[in-house]
Amino acid sequence: MAFISSSSEYALHCLLWLVAPQGRPISSRDLAEMQGVSPALLAKIYPKLERAGIVEAIVGIGGGYRLALDPRSITVLDVVEAVEGTKPLFKCRDIRRNCALFEANPPSWSTVGICEIHAVMLRAERAMRDELSRTNILELAQGVPAPIEFMQIVRTWFDQRATGRELSRQAAMRRSRTKGSPAD
Amino acid sequence: MAFISSSSEYALHCLLWLVAPQGRPISSRDLAEMQGVSPALLAKIYPKLERAGIVEAIVGIGGGYRLALDPRSITVLDVVEAVEGTKPLFKCRDIRRNCALFEANPPSWSTVGICEIHAVMLRAERAMRDELSRTNILELAQGVPAPIEFMQIVRTWFDQRATGRELSRQAAMRRSRTKGSPAD
Repeated sequence: MAFISSSSEYALHCLLWLVAPQGRPISSRDLAEMQGVSPALLAKIYPKLERAGIVEAIVGIGGGYRLALDPRSITVLDVVEAVEGTKPLFKCRDIRRNCALFEANPPSWSTVGICEIHAVMLRAERAMRDELSRTNILELAQGVPAPIEFMQIVRTWFDQRATGRELSRQAAMRRSRTKGSPAD
Repeated sequence: MAFISSSSEYALHCLLWLVAPQGRPISSRDLAEMQGVSPALLAKIYPKLERAGIVEAIVGIGGGYRLALDPRSITVLDVVEAVEGTKPLFKCRDIRRNCALFEANPPSWSTVGICEIHAVMLRAERAMRDELSRTNILELAQGVPAPIEFMQIVRTWFDQRATGRELSRQAAMRRSRTKGSPAD
């Protein structure tokens, strides 16, 4: 598995659908189906974004996710760390202590400060994370060269999905009331 | 497993013993035992460094490894790439093509150039590799705050190991000749 997994890719792609001001929140199922990714997988990813304060979940009828912050203040790093955690690029085993000449009793000069090799790895990881923090999700969304009418089609699709679900729910309730009436 | 594995850590630590000009090449077994890491593992790692032109293997009696280049021209990135290969930080699945609205026929605007998300990940990976390339193994070795007499002790240890092995070899040959003599 790559260091930054497909879960981050799915999280980021689906967040782009939330960047445009929406009339209503969007369910993770609709986000997943719009993007052509697994709804089951996205249903595990989005609670992580919620816990990180990137999206908020609106519960109840017409519920779903919406951004919890201005998209300009959500960086790619925020999303990657919400999804992947802050696992290190390199896990130092501090093997400088193991030199045979120390005979299991390393002198203080050999363990002072951080290992030189670990220090280089930490600088590389910092450079990587700094670069990820330089782009926010508004910039990502604006980088997609979609024609202007496309986002209107997208909004209509999401609205139709939510409306269709609401109509199904109302019909089910009516059937349930009919079944439960004294005439049954 | 971390993105940069313990194999890179072992390779780098053991390379530091080769930085000081040595009287003779050092076997991967002696490098491993000096550093307190698995000789079997190091015996798999060092051929990768040899293929990358970082070390050269001297075969035959008194053989072993020595640096193939000036240590100032061997960067941490060179060693990490020799050991880990150039696996990407992020493997883009190009899921921008999968939008439900495209119905499996993505328009050209949606697939032009590189995906915006992938582009950010590539910049982050570049920043990480650039940082790894900023430090060479001479600088790493000079960063270890060992007292000046320590490297002499190290050299003596390696020399004694090599000499001990050579004496054992000669003794074994003598035994073999004695067994093979007409007196037997």
